[in-house]
Amino acid sequence: MARWQADARERLRQAALELFAEQGFTATTVPMITARAGLTTRTFFRHFADKREVLFADEAELPAYAEQLVTEAPADASPLTIILDGLRAVAEARFEGRKDTVRQWRAIVATDAGLRERELQKRAALAAAIRDGFCARGLDPTRAALLAETSATLMYVSVTEWLEIDDDRKLYDVIETALAALRATLDA
Amino acid sequence: MARWQADARERLRQAALELFAEQGFTATTVPMITARAGLTTRTFFRHFADKREVLFADEAELPAYAEQLVTEAPADASPLTIILDGLRAVAEARFEGRKDTVRQWRAIVATDAGLRERELQKRAALAAAIRDGFCARGLDPTRAALLAETSATLMYVSVTEWLEIDDDRKLYDVIETALAALRATLDA
Repeated sequence: MARWQADARERLRQAALELFAEQGFTATTVPMITARAGLTTRTFFRHFADKREVLFADEAELPAYAEQLVTEAPADASPLTIILDGLRAVAEARFEGRKDTVRQWRAIVATDAGLRERELQKRAALAAAIRDGFCARGLDPTRAALLAETSATLMYVSVTEWLEIDDDRKLYDVIETALAALRATLDA
Repeated sequence: MARWQADARERLRQAALELFAEQGFTATTVPMITARAGLTTRTFFRHFADKREVLFADEAELPAYAEQLVTEAPADASPLTIILDGLRAVAEARFEGRKDTVRQWRAIVATDAGLRERELQKRAALAAAIRDGFCARGLDPTRAALLAETSATLMYVSVTEWLEIDDDRKLYDVIETALAALRATLDA
């Protein structure tokens, strides 16, 4: 993608996030977003199908990416190693250094029932992709589903905690602490 | 509830499930359901707000029930004991002896995007209620959320397996086996 295109996309996203935060998701229109970004609606629709997609477009390829991480892990890697390596890769690629944006994103999604629904679907699609990856490695479907759901839970719950803390703890450290807490509870 | 009322509700539900399975959720109307049940549409709307509610009305109180199981557990019960006792109570009250109905229910939900969305919301509401129950017992929010999501996962994944097996294994036995598999993976 040419530099100016990437800039346009990022400017549109930033303008949309600002407006959603300032005046609400429902009250914000595409022309308001493009006016704020100093771009045309034509440019907007080259990058996004609608205003909701500004919030979810970058997540669209996450399930395929996660499934690939699982299927392409070394043949002798344990499921736990695969999960932890995958969570670390996603944490570093998607979350580290972007805490303010993620916080803003979550706050906007929380205000709208349709956006919350979409978020749930996204999470279910991610878990299904991880499950398929483990099934492709030969795990039985129940164990594959358990590990997939647990991976999604570890990521989701840890992101929630990471957004709430103000020190510079890494998301992956929060994930490891959460895993230790889950393990301690289940082994009690 | 008077006997004849309970009968009407159950007859409407059975008629609706049959029709949804035979001709699809979308193609089925309330008059078709009442005709099959030999009851009036007026009676239908005394029991259900719309045809979707036939599928979800009985689940409406599940989050409150689950939260109560958590908050009212003995003060010295460990989180794991609370989870297992809760899962056993729900398995026995809602699933045992009803495998055919649950199977039919899941098959119908799988056919319709709106119903799948509703199912995801239901699961999220259940997890939120369990989390609130653990928070009320003094657990920190992250651990409470982890245990709540894991409880919902254990139930959901185990029900899927239980529906697929044709012997008379109890759902709670499937849940215990799933927990052992999860534990073994996380401890590896």
